[in-house]
Amino acid sequence: MHEQYGQDQHPLRDAGRARCLPRALTSEAGAFAGRTARLQGWVHRIRRIGVVTFVLLRDRSGLIQLVVDAAGPAAATAAVAGLNVEDVIEVTGIVNADARAKGGYEVLVETIVVLSAAAALPFEVNLPQLKVGQDLALDHRVLSLRHPRSQAIFRLKAAIIKAFRDFSGAEGFIEVQTPKIVATATEGGANLFPVDYLGRRAYLAQSPQLYKQMLVLSGFERVYEVGPVYRAEPHNTSRHVNEFTSLDWEIGFIDSAAEVMALEETMLRQLVARLSTDHAADLAAIGVELAARLPERPIPRLTLGEAHALLQRRRAKELPPGDLDPEGERLLCELVAGPVFVTAWPAKVRPAYAQPCEDAPHLTDSFDLLLGGMEVTTGGRRISDHGALRASLENRGLDPGAFDFYLDAFRYGAPPHGGLAIGAERLTVALLGLSNLREATFFPRDLDRLTP
Amino acid sequence: MHEQYGQDQHPLRDAGRARCLPRALTSEAGAFAGRTARLQGWVHRIRRIGVVTFVLLRDRSGLIQLVVDAAGPAAATAAVAGLNVEDVIEVTGIVNADARAKGGYEVLVETIVVLSAAAALPFEVNLPQLKVGQDLALDHRVLSLRHPRSQAIFRLKAAIIKAFRDFSGAEGFIEVQTPKIVATATEGGANLFPVDYLGRRAYLAQSPQLYKQMLVLSGFERVYEVGPVYRAEPHNTSRHVNEFTSLDWEIGFIDSAAEVMALEETMLRQLVARLSTDHAADLAAIGVELAARLPERPIPRLTLGEAHALLQRRRAKELPPGDLDPEGERLLCELVAGPVFVTAWPAKVRPAYAQPCEDAPHLTDSFDLLLGGMEVTTGGRRISDHGALRASLENRGLDPGAFDFYLDAFRYGAPPHGGLAIGAERLTVALLGLSNLREATFFPRDLDRLTP
Repeated sequence: MHEQYGQDQHPLRDAGRARCLPRALTSEAGAFAGRTARLQGWVHRIRRIGVVTFVLLRDRSGLIQLVVDAAGPAAATAAVAGLNVEDVIEVTGIVNADARAKGGYEVLVETIVVLSAAAALPFEVNLPQLKVGQDLALDHRVLSLRHPRSQAIFRLKAAIIKAFRDFSGAEGFIEVQTPKIVATATEGGANLFPVDYLGRRAYLAQSPQLYKQMLVLSGFERVYEVGPVYRAEPHNTSRHVNEFTSLDWEIGFIDSAAEVMALEETMLRQLVARLSTDHAADLAAIGVELAARLPERPIPRLTLGEAHALLQRRRAKELPPGDLDPEGERLLCELVAGPVFVTAWPAKVRPAYAQPCEDAPHLTDSFDLLLGGMEVTTGGRRISDHGALRASLENRGLDPGAFDFYLDAFRYGAPPHGGLAIGAERLTVALLGLSNLREATFFPRDLDRLTP
Repeated sequence: MHEQYGQDQHPLRDAGRARCLPRALTSEAGAFAGRTARLQGWVHRIRRIGVVTFVLLRDRSGLIQLVVDAAGPAAATAAVAGLNVEDVIEVTGIVNADARAKGGYEVLVETIVVLSAAAALPFEVNLPQLKVGQDLALDHRVLSLRHPRSQAIFRLKAAIIKAFRDFSGAEGFIEVQTPKIVATATEGGANLFPVDYLGRRAYLAQSPQLYKQMLVLSGFERVYEVGPVYRAEPHNTSRHVNEFTSLDWEIGFIDSAAEVMALEETMLRQLVARLSTDHAADLAAIGVELAARLPERPIPRLTLGEAHALLQRRRAKELPPGDLDPEGERLLCELVAGPVFVTAWPAKVRPAYAQPCEDAPHLTDSFDLLLGGMEVTTGGRRISDHGALRASLENRGLDPGAFDFYLDAFRYGAPPHGGLAIGAERLTVALLGLSNLREATFFPRDLDRLTP
């Protein structure tokens, strides 16, 4: 009905607003029982039954039922007649306890003002499951994100990142920011996005690796970062996006990758315990039993060689030599019925900074954590000796001169160190049992998608 | 002495380490009084007095004095003879309370192992003030960051960011991540870093502006982000770097910039109170009286017109029409003896998304916060009406088609909203009274500097 008006000219716009009352969230309605509250939000659903209209109002805290009775104020009755789903409205009304209503309260509407009218939607957002293809959902990201399941996923993602940060802070880590515009590849020369840096060729950082190591060497010892990283991979899979959030640790004065694994395991257990306690409603909304994702027994540790043998024996799985493939990762988690650390990766599949094992120098003291059938973490001990690091770069055909800014740092007292990088979106997807990284990415960047 | 050896061959390397004892931080020494502790860190200073050598050991928690007596273990005496400043060492020894020692404890060394020997330093890092030019300090960033003043600055920066996050969380904001690779300019077409995105032209985001607004419209209502932003400005000043950390808010269901200012002021007061309480030692190390930076009276609010009049009357200051310049910002903070909100900026100096004032449409309902003589925040109410936003883009000669992904979001129910962006490095510099953004940036990116 209101589409006959431009949004500026909508007759209800800004008329009759009750600004003297503070806004109440739908979740706070109980505090206003028997009194007038002012609420704001989106129209989630409209049911017209005889002379009564029931409107489900949605805000960031949840849903509440509004009741507009034809026997009520004439202005409210008129306004509700023109209402559409996803209109943004402001209402005032008496809050009544009502056991039949969602949340236990409903609002008998006195005034209703449309703050912003919604055009016809490309798809419904108020269904129990969003029934829309991935492309349309991402094209209209602002609509697909409104779905309660999406809202819960991103609240949980934020809680996962917060748990990582809080644990890090409690363990003596300092939060750092490393540059994302860099002059050299950190993880090898491929898959870099070139940047024109004021006329000079630069790249987007594939990881904070070199810089977080330098910050350990700067005396901060234990650093963490939560920030974007970039991979110019022409993949189009459910487990790749080209820009993602990396949760990074780098830790001085450790002597083995095992110490990093132990700390990660402790962090993950605390994270899972905290989410289970503090975010039970969101977990229930997604239907995930978080404790089942991380069984109570210690996470098993297999060398890559043991993992290969197990997969060959139990699943007759052929694997790329000295590596795992996505199917191998999935099968391995299946075989151990949970997450698994895979250790002792060959030097040839790890970057130049990986510390060789003392007793087997073709292997590195490094690990991946597989969780939910997918690599979510890569970590290990790093080379901290200047000469050995330089030699490792040269052995890979890299020009040590391009790494002078990094190598130089190892000449002035470099403690033994190691660390890890966790993909925040992968961790979210693995813990929540989602099927695609894009479900845990606000605005994905991939082969096809540069907007929104 | 040890420079005759390659670092790999250093005779002390890895010999005789006492790994069964857990590492104690220097700050934890008191807990080991009368017992043996294992400590690790950098050699901060060496004094040789007769047969006794005093070594100041530095780790992330502070300093402690090590005492090596010629009457002690022969291996320790031999090791300490070859010690240089900034060597990374591990020592074991008995912790003794000693009122004369820094921190009240010293360690009578039993074993000492050099984990990593330091080459001759390009400058001293153990002086009370670092005596080195900016370029050399940044070239050897890993060394200049080791100075206790730098360590304190970055601990305080981390605390500032944490206070922003904690306040935001308590106020119902959700943390978000927006893409830094974008297809269009957010703040106007100039000063963009081009990115080659898999063969397509893209840019680094100047701000999360369009995306954080879209996330408000996505139903999250209140979003915050801590992330990098990019300005390809060919400036070389103490107040510009080309990559910095932006603390962003975007807030739905607000009706004026005044609400954003009020929330920022509350946040800043809590931040200052928390730093003063929890980080007193670091503040003292830098010599800053934080409370003085944010007087207890409310932050004054001046329109830009009033600010101009004041500066002309009291300082005979000529200003660019409808704007402030750096000297104007400095003088204005001087005149009001503290921070000041400057409001009602002309539409022509603000971006297309700025909401015009109802009673004066050539002005916008927007603000800057000047603190420490410098703009640290820009904020305001945004246009939330689809038609008005489209018209505003067109009025500036922008192609609305390039903004379809953004404009489209305003067609499906867009609440009134506003927000702000705080430069984290500028806020740190302003609160701590530093003289250059580079002092609060781990690895600055500027006109000249792309490494380290």
